[in-house]
Amino acid sequence: MTTFLFFVFLAATFAAGTTGAMFPTGEWYQKLNKPAWTPPNWAFPVMWTSIYLLIAFAGARVAMIPGAGLAMAFWAAQIAFNTLWTPVFFGLRHWRASLIIMAGLWLSVFGATVTHLMLDLWAGLAFVPYLLWVTVAGALNLTVVRLNPDQKPLEIHKL
Amino acid sequence: MTTFLFFVFLAATFAAGTTGAMFPTGEWYQKLNKPAWTPPNWAFPVMWTSIYLLIAFAGARVAMIPGAGLAMAFWAAQIAFNTLWTPVFFGLRHWRASLIIMAGLWLSVFGATVTHLMLDLWAGLAFVPYLLWVTVAGALNLTVVRLNPDQKPLEIHKL
Repeated sequence: MTTFLFFVFLAATFAAGTTGAMFPTGEWYQKLNKPAWTPPNWAFPVMWTSIYLLIAFAGARVAMIPGAGLAMAFWAAQIAFNTLWTPVFFGLRHWRASLIIMAGLWLSVFGATVTHLMLDLWAGLAFVPYLLWVTVAGALNLTVVRLNPDQKPLEIHKL
Repeated sequence: MTTFLFFVFLAATFAAGTTGAMFPTGEWYQKLNKPAWTPPNWAFPVMWTSIYLLIAFAGARVAMIPGAGLAMAFWAAQIAFNTLWTPVFFGLRHWRASLIIMAGLWLSVFGATVTHLMLDLWAGLAFVPYLLWVTVAGALNLTVVRLNPDQKPLEIHKL
């Protein structure tokens, strides 16, 4: 595992994490009906920062192992779905689309976890908190949609 | 190159391409001052669809070659920056941030082109139209920023 390789993967997670800073929650989000088990606000940046460091480590550890192609494809897919989800949920507030993207994110994280685990125990374990967290995030996304059926997507291109 | 591998990479590009559909241009964009050499509107979806197919092909071709780790890291980084750029430019209309993201996108596409080329001629060539197109897109981004200095970012979290 070279340091440079780690930093290129970290750059990818940095792009994904930028969405959290650029599409922040607002008063509209605080007012939404949310389930009692919603994690506290501070937990989200803490979890995402930890997850991004762990998966950059996992990617760098696995990338040079022969036969890592599928693991790398899932690594790429999860970071694209991850980057897409935040602008659609917090930017557009588009419930239906956010759920479809969440399904793509969950499947690609699941694929990445399994394929990394098959190549390297530590890389696979590094994906486990991510898989658990997107499971929570997916359940939260679904519950928020159910509890707030009247939310309309923002048509920001008309502004 | 397995078909499944190709489709996982294609799923990543699908996530990136979704931003184009979900953050469309609006009247505000038509009214912006743009340079005479701005490509016509129809060129953008045509170019992006072609590029996404080409890089999914490139990724699938290279992924299983031993030593493809760095190429895969750059592949992941470019798709994350790609997915991030559209919501920030067309969603938030945040000029300064869009230029920084464009720099990250250009560098990661450049890195992907070089590393793919070192492993496989066809995979490297498949990245060349992408590198040329992000060079044009970067120049366009910079020129639009210069020609429209008064554009304020949308604070959509306050809506």
